[in-house]
Amino acid sequence: MPLPLTTRRGDTLWYDRREGVVQVLDRRLYPRERSYVACQSIAEVAHAIEAMIVQGGPPLAYVGGYGVALAGALSRGQGDAERRAAIRQAAKRLLATRPTADDLQAVVDGARRAAEDAIERGEDPESAAADYVEGEVARGDRSSEACGRAAAGMLDDGDVILTHCFAGAALNWMLFTAVEQGKQIKLVCNETRPYLQGARLAAAAGVEIGVPTTVITDNMAGYCFSQGMFTKYITAADRIAMDGAAANKVGTYQYAVLARRHRVPFFVLGYDGPDPATPDGAAIPIELRDPSEVLSFNGVRVAAVGAAGFYPAFDVTPPELITAIVTDRGVFTPAQIRAYHAERRPPDEPARAI
Amino acid sequence: MPLPLTTRRGDTLWYDRREGVVQVLDRRLYPRERSYVACQSIAEVAHAIEAMIVQGGPPLAYVGGYGVALAGALSRGQGDAERRAAIRQAAKRLLATRPTADDLQAVVDGARRAAEDAIERGEDPESAAADYVEGEVARGDRSSEACGRAAAGMLDDGDVILTHCFAGAALNWMLFTAVEQGKQIKLVCNETRPYLQGARLAAAAGVEIGVPTTVITDNMAGYCFSQGMFTKYITAADRIAMDGAAANKVGTYQYAVLARRHRVPFFVLGYDGPDPATPDGAAIPIELRDPSEVLSFNGVRVAAVGAAGFYPAFDVTPPELITAIVTDRGVFTPAQIRAYHAERRPPDEPARAI
Repeated sequence: MPLPLTTRRGDTLWYDRREGVVQVLDRRLYPRERSYVACQSIAEVAHAIEAMIVQGGPPLAYVGGYGVALAGALSRGQGDAERRAAIRQAAKRLLATRPTADDLQAVVDGARRAAEDAIERGEDPESAAADYVEGEVARGDRSSEACGRAAAGMLDDGDVILTHCFAGAALNWMLFTAVEQGKQIKLVCNETRPYLQGARLAAAAGVEIGVPTTVITDNMAGYCFSQGMFTKYITAADRIAMDGAAANKVGTYQYAVLARRHRVPFFVLGYDGPDPATPDGAAIPIELRDPSEVLSFNGVRVAAVGAAGFYPAFDVTPPELITAIVTDRGVFTPAQIRAYHAERRPPDEPARAI
Repeated sequence: MPLPLTTRRGDTLWYDRREGVVQVLDRRLYPRERSYVACQSIAEVAHAIEAMIVQGGPPLAYVGGYGVALAGALSRGQGDAERRAAIRQAAKRLLATRPTADDLQAVVDGARRAAEDAIERGEDPESAAADYVEGEVARGDRSSEACGRAAAGMLDDGDVILTHCFAGAALNWMLFTAVEQGKQIKLVCNETRPYLQGARLAAAAGVEIGVPTTVITDNMAGYCFSQGMFTKYITAADRIAMDGAAANKVGTYQYAVLARRHRVPFFVLGYDGPDPATPDGAAIPIELRDPSEVLSFNGVRVAAVGAAGFYPAFDVTPPELITAIVTDRGVFTPAQIRAYHAERRPPDEPARAI
């Protein structure tokens, strides 16, 4: 049983040092097509993030980080001050692409610091930034596996799991591990308009791992909850606040409300924990995307002419609707999630029960 | 300010006695295209209903009723017993098209009785059935106007109304009347996958009437509720039970749960009242449609290959989540809706306040 392509992030995005390009799997087309977009300028890297060629908090952060390495390559031959300015300008542009997820800020800032430090030492900023991001990708892969394996421990034989959008590599690891453990589980994916990450990416992961997978449209979960069809509701989070609130793909909140009404536990795949700089859910900026994206599909206008669109890309689920946050350091209740940073345990220590 | 095409049902569906065809506006394409499908056989009429060429409880019921008239025309020249059998067989086929809405049963049965009575009297069953359905269309138009005007009385200046799917002619009358009264209102339409009746039909009605209209995808209402963007939630119902439960397009229930959580009143446009033969919500059959319809979008496969689909077409909202049911005889709380049939008032009597 193979792990899906979306499990190891280095398989879907990387920095080609020989050519000086950032390569990105086009997640708008996957799994129907496996095509890669080669970004050769900062504008192209920013576009790959903004146009959802890459999607998901960590993956888009890594692409942003590799953009900093590309800025190092593009400024080769200039003086140190010019290179430093070019790298700072690139980082600023890349940070402006998407405001909600916390990973982008961390990885782009880290890559910029690595590049500037290299200039300081008379070394190559391109290599330094690329090395840093490759390390982050490897760290993120380990974190995803630990988070997903901890989540598998929360699953029971016979579970029917509702998920929304694509919860990323930790979802793959959770499903993979549960199947390894011999648990009979089923996955139901909200299709997740307008980009259909649920119908495409999450459903492809379930199918590839061999879990019976069903797709529903975004208006059907309430009926399924009312019929007792789901036993768990599980999503990722683009940012977790220190009070345990979780921002994730728009819709996550409304299914959390339904899960609570129908007494179904809601687990958030929290990867490497909350953002220490975000005190609570209200402090998370919600990205408002181009409203025209909700008015058409595959380039065909579907909404009545004259109607406006509105496209909030994320919503915030308050801590009281979240049963537990599953991280690479184990499982926390939302009220306990602050303890993630208090405890400096290595990620391979056993998960603690809530 | 014109009324939208979808207001007078005779403008979108009729029986052409000269040609012996049922003409139906293709609501899958409207408003992008105004094309009509000419049904010349019972199979074609049944297909128009099953394939959603016509949509909405009353409109599809009228198309079914005109199918009975067509059966009368197609059996011309046969003996009375053969004609009666052909008409009964057609009615049986037409009744089997869609199980959830109550109007289809009433109108097809009424048309069949009219046709059989005509044969009994030595008269033309085609004309008798067509006359009966035309009377029902006229009665339905009056009911829609009375219901919509009563609903307009529930609206306040500054209201932002969330709606799901297309609530039909009464929605048009409600918006039209509110604008006539000088109320500043706004409409937000859930796009309503998989057929997008909200993005197309409801949004077109709002735009044509001159109400500022916004389309969102089906996963965004929760965010909007959490931001206090909606002041009313209003839908139609395909069937109302005598306990005040309402079956409507799948999704209606989940937004009713959100409306209650965020203290937004939910009004059901109840047209001509509950179905006396349906004691409670549990007695309403929920149509499960072809799952493949959720796996594609505008004819393009979108879901990962290997994933199954699931397509419940309706859900049931329990009476405790409904603030009021607005009918052609005025406004009722769900607990009072039985009184609709107890009071035999004509539809033009003033609405009573809840």
